[in-house]
Amino acid sequence: MSGRLVIAGLGPGSERLITPEVSDALATATDVLGYIPYVTRVADRPGLTKHLSDNREELDRARHALELTATGRQVVIVSSGDPGVFAMAAAVFEAVEAGPAPWRALSIEVLPGITAMLAAAARAGAPLGHDFCAINLSDNLKPWELIEQRLRLAAEADFAMAFYNPRSKSRPEQFARALDVLKTSCADARPVVFARAVSTPEEVIRTVPLPDATPEMADMRTVVIVGSSRTRVIARDGAPFVYTPSSVPV
Amino acid sequence: MSGRLVIAGLGPGSERLITPEVSDALATATDVLGYIPYVTRVADRPGLTKHLSDNREELDRARHALELTATGRQVVIVSSGDPGVFAMAAAVFEAVEAGPAPWRALSIEVLPGITAMLAAAARAGAPLGHDFCAINLSDNLKPWELIEQRLRLAAEADFAMAFYNPRSKSRPEQFARALDVLKTSCADARPVVFARAVSTPEEVIRTVPLPDATPEMADMRTVVIVGSSRTRVIARDGAPFVYTPSSVPV
Repeated sequence: MSGRLVIAGLGPGSERLITPEVSDALATATDVLGYIPYVTRVADRPGLTKHLSDNREELDRARHALELTATGRQVVIVSSGDPGVFAMAAAVFEAVEAGPAPWRALSIEVLPGITAMLAAAARAGAPLGHDFCAINLSDNLKPWELIEQRLRLAAEADFAMAFYNPRSKSRPEQFARALDVLKTSCADARPVVFARAVSTPEEVIRTVPLPDATPEMADMRTVVIVGSSRTRVIARDGAPFVYTPSSVPV
Repeated sequence: MSGRLVIAGLGPGSERLITPEVSDALATATDVLGYIPYVTRVADRPGLTKHLSDNREELDRARHALELTATGRQVVIVSSGDPGVFAMAAAVFEAVEAGPAPWRALSIEVLPGITAMLAAAARAGAPLGHDFCAINLSDNLKPWELIEQRLRLAAEADFAMAFYNPRSKSRPEQFARALDVLKTSCADARPVVFARAVSTPEEVIRTVPLPDATPEMADMRTVVIVGSSRTRVIARDGAPFVYTPSSVPV
């Protein structure tokens, strides 16, 4: 049997946000690989081997999956959210490019998922209803100066912004600096949505004006959405609706 | 019975990309509203009333849905892709804000979906694996000068870019101008992915270097993804893999 590698998005947490094509791929896999908590979400069954690995081992995991696929296994790498957005798909293709030539001929398929910013936006209303950008604030990935420059340019372009991995214990000060850049560049009270653990039992959604946003409102399970200058807040009993109108008057 | 309004994302076309929570909402709806081809995708059944409307009538459709909800109906507005990304959710909240006060107390829920750029990126590889932006090129929505400015700033920020609604019969020249801005601002041969009708029987994916991109490669059913300066193309038999590495060397 020919091997097949699927890189599948499990969505932000709820089983009810997993697409049928991802469920089907998991049901026929011989091997599932991924970060420990994501693989744990996949039910055990006879014939399925689970390979759990740490979060920092993306390239090793990708190579392992490609090796298994080359031997004819039906392999699924699971990602949270969408595998193409700050997740495993890029690591797999990086491994393919650097790996042996036969890997390029393997059957490799990416199955999209609900990425965290879409689930977070849906809970808040429609803050990404107009042009927006998505930035990964995780350390190790790029020079901090590049992040600050992107924040300034994104503010100048008047994008709404979604931030992944805003804060970790190893770098608590970076998100504080990012908020400072935004407060200076935006200079208004646009809403900021802190969406933690969306679609899980631990979900918390909190919206504050940008001047009131503080670093400890986020952790590594939080997606942060900063509105554009045109983002609106509709006050009501309970959580407000936050949305960005689709059009800018000509 | 209390009314409920759900704004649901049907994904890019395939039934296999519709989340279980959206399927469940459709199964219990009394009324489904939306643009004609999207409502047509919902199966008929006793007790379900379909309200089909033209593409240009988003605010009227939103108000109609809110009126039905206020009378106690179980209402679903269907969007292609994700309702929060250049789709119906923003129009609903715009109608809520401008409408009678009791509408703010209605049960309104947005159910996310696979938006076109995620499905297109998955087919091409992982071109959105690093920071990126999403821009709606549709006319009527904003001044053209704003679009050109955003394109230049996005290139300066070195975002990968996803363009929705790049081209229509009524404005064939705008996408040509957008490509000219990109060719000047980027000044390299980064890949451009034209993804038409992703996940439908009419799907076509085509990748060309930016200097070779021409306006007629896109139509209104196409999502266009322009890589960042770091986006890679892995040549192979058949369609290449296109991906953007997750990290920029520090």
